[in-house]
Amino acid sequence: MDHDEFRRLGHQLIDWIASYRERMEKLPVMSPVKPGQVKARFPAEPPRRGGGAAAGLAGIDADILPGVTHWTHPSFFAYFPSNASYGSVLGDLLSSGLAAQGMSWQTAPAATELEEVVMGWLRQMLGLPPAFTGVIQDTASTATLCALLCARERTSGFAQNHGGLQGGGPPLTVYASDQSHASIEKAALLAGFGKDHLRLLGTDGRHALRLELLQAAIEKDKAAGRRPCAVVACVGTTATTSIDPVKGIAALAAKHGLWLHVDAAMAGTAMVLPECRVHWEGVEAADSLVVNPHKWMGIGFDFSAYFVRDPEHLVRVMSTNPSYLRTAQDGEVRNLRDWGIPLGRRFRALKAWLHLLDEGVEGMQARLRRDLANARWLVEQVGQTTDWELLAPVHFQTLCLRHVPTDQRDEKRLAAHNLAIAERVNRSGKAYVTPAVLKGKQMIRVSIGAESTERRHVEAVWGALRAAARTV
Amino acid sequence: MDHDEFRRLGHQLIDWIASYRERMEKLPVMSPVKPGQVKARFPAEPPRRGGGAAAGLAGIDADILPGVTHWTHPSFFAYFPSNASYGSVLGDLLSSGLAAQGMSWQTAPAATELEEVVMGWLRQMLGLPPAFTGVIQDTASTATLCALLCARERTSGFAQNHGGLQGGGPPLTVYASDQSHASIEKAALLAGFGKDHLRLLGTDGRHALRLELLQAAIEKDKAAGRRPCAVVACVGTTATTSIDPVKGIAALAAKHGLWLHVDAAMAGTAMVLPECRVHWEGVEAADSLVVNPHKWMGIGFDFSAYFVRDPEHLVRVMSTNPSYLRTAQDGEVRNLRDWGIPLGRRFRALKAWLHLLDEGVEGMQARLRRDLANARWLVEQVGQTTDWELLAPVHFQTLCLRHVPTDQRDEKRLAAHNLAIAERVNRSGKAYVTPAVLKGKQMIRVSIGAESTERRHVEAVWGALRAAARTV
Repeated sequence: MDHDEFRRLGHQLIDWIASYRERMEKLPVMSPVKPGQVKARFPAEPPRRGGGAAAGLAGIDADILPGVTHWTHPSFFAYFPSNASYGSVLGDLLSSGLAAQGMSWQTAPAATELEEVVMGWLRQMLGLPPAFTGVIQDTASTATLCALLCARERTSGFAQNHGGLQGGGPPLTVYASDQSHASIEKAALLAGFGKDHLRLLGTDGRHALRLELLQAAIEKDKAAGRRPCAVVACVGTTATTSIDPVKGIAALAAKHGLWLHVDAAMAGTAMVLPECRVHWEGVEAADSLVVNPHKWMGIGFDFSAYFVRDPEHLVRVMSTNPSYLRTAQDGEVRNLRDWGIPLGRRFRALKAWLHLLDEGVEGMQARLRRDLANARWLVEQVGQTTDWELLAPVHFQTLCLRHVPTDQRDEKRLAAHNLAIAERVNRSGKAYVTPAVLKGKQMIRVSIGAESTERRHVEAVWGALRAAARTV
Repeated sequence: MDHDEFRRLGHQLIDWIASYRERMEKLPVMSPVKPGQVKARFPAEPPRRGGGAAAGLAGIDADILPGVTHWTHPSFFAYFPSNASYGSVLGDLLSSGLAAQGMSWQTAPAATELEEVVMGWLRQMLGLPPAFTGVIQDTASTATLCALLCARERTSGFAQNHGGLQGGGPPLTVYASDQSHASIEKAALLAGFGKDHLRLLGTDGRHALRLELLQAAIEKDKAAGRRPCAVVACVGTTATTSIDPVKGIAALAAKHGLWLHVDAAMAGTAMVLPECRVHWEGVEAADSLVVNPHKWMGIGFDFSAYFVRDPEHLVRVMSTNPSYLRTAQDGEVRNLRDWGIPLGRRFRALKAWLHLLDEGVEGMQARLRRDLANARWLVEQVGQTTDWELLAPVHFQTLCLRHVPTDQRDEKRLAAHNLAIAERVNRSGKAYVTPAVLKGKQMIRVSIGAESTERRHVEAVWGALRAAARTV
């Protein structure tokens, strides 16, 4: 493809994206395709001859779009808000066009330094003290793995440089609540701790970690000759957006020498609002913390913000220094290859930069407050309706609902009934919600916060849920 | 930003990218900025008001571009070719615009199924048998970590579900050559094996792993009560593109029950040429293999192709199945969140799809053969020049050179001299090469393969190196 064809197809594609987003509201939120249906539209063998890009792009409406679940749809209430603002789309396009490889400072100085700039902006926006240094990771799963690896090495005195976890020392243990995200168990297992050394502790009526259980577990492990290593506190769990008592956990972590990692992947964005920061009181004591601006904040995936108190420790765990990667500026600059697992790094700071320039802190705050108000409105509606109930406190923008028809108390039937409601709504294409199980109870999660979601869309999903409840 | 502003700025940015690539040849390859220079152009505080995207984009020539090292420049001969074709830039733009989240099949059926399609295409293009199944990872570093985690769990009988590496079994050991990439040591350390259990074995005069040393190391570990777990064979090492004897390594791996991972991150692309496949004879016995299409192949970063023989094993190591991620189609579809470390997944198949449609297999083969011919031409020039020497065989497109002035045999002075030559060329902005150390000898790596590199650029870098050698 030459420069002029790129210009022509590029303009076409920009227009296609704008038109896609303009007409999105009329598309079914959840893709209605059957397994195998998309695959069948593509040849099993690679194209021998080139020149097929224009034809490929001309086919996206027929070949690709039916297989897309529209995450930025105004009636997307599933999982979590996953916005990708126009500003961030343009920033990402610039990154693709520049094709800068930010593994070392020298290989892309702007990628390294603009990352420092935007991570500084985000730190301030989240109300975090200057003691934290930020670096972009792809996802919270990866950031949490980095955190547990750093914890492992701090507690073991850098055993990776000797016997690793195979050196025969006392087993290291990790703690989190039974409501913590699956990525925490995954990270603990991948880091080699083993399921036997992971304590997923019980939660209270508000689904928050119970401090007395944490204290008892730490003390029991110590008494048994094990070495408590790390605790993960969740600010906004996945199922219910519950909030662990960060301050109390931090005190226990300090007392027993544990690494404190705070997982605020989804709800961290709320901290752009000063009135929400009461929810992570004590966070300044964390060793590491992850917030996903690629969720509610609006920066297109993938952009996970990982903050650490001791970047030198992170670098010591992650660094490699073979001769072919050494440059003249080593020692005076950041080489971001040493700040995470992958060596290569995309220029992801650009999409954060353009998003923040475009929206501004005040614009973002207004949008987040709109979403919180929409959630409060829906909470009020549920409160005024006798046969619907909330299964968890609503701290931010996620509601955990279920429909309980009069006199129906059989949990198995209630589960089937609520699963059927969610499936009915999702298959209608009018809205997309997430069915999930909370401590044995089938619920319907409604997560509000797509950039384009207005009050009328929340009214519509509430109407759709009630209609489905009457007819399934 | 509304739809119309996105159209306007999007068209502008497409034009800017085309113009950037048109005029790139006149830009200095390596960014000339000093540390801190880019950062100083941006405010330390986030923008309060929004609406600044147009102004931000208007400033990229002044604020960003000077800090960019141009990886797609025709005179980029450093590190490895890192192409990002126009086709792949458009595919990535479509991915950003759709903002589909491919963690589960249901959350983006097209992202999952098009990934199956393009990974099937790549498998065929690389001459790999149908027994391999491919999945996209971000980088080879991450893919290799996945491989060693899978090896660890296979050898230990899924110890992660019990005591992990802390269960007190015999220590597991990992093998690779002393020329293997730094990411292999990093992966072994992060996976918890410990440096004491990693054997970086000596290489022969062609810098390939010595089979007899591998055999001896495995037998010694077994005799000492350790459990040999995994071996990494490199097809195209980073420093010299040397080639480990895959077939012999595979035989030892089979005999002793080791996981065989093949690292062909850079050179794997050469296997699109049937005449190159002799270089990885035996690869069909690998348990896992990584090739980076985001290097020489031309798909924009990040796109690492990870192939496995037993995807069920990968899924068993990586899977999480909390209720909030379950969908109606589980069991009949791939949920790609279970095929790697991150939960969230970008729709990266699009950039491979458009790149392959645009270039075609035959177009790619012609380009790769052009690069190999350019490398052979430079090898001939070096051979005809008395005071330059090659430090390693040239299997593909990377040359390891050094200048040896008449009668100069002092290694320290030769090192300083060749480092000075590389720095002189790099600082001139006319070309960018990589200084590196090979077994104590300072060399200059010239890696050919940018999409826009023609013979005249190779002639020019050869001229620049010789001129620098005369004047430093």
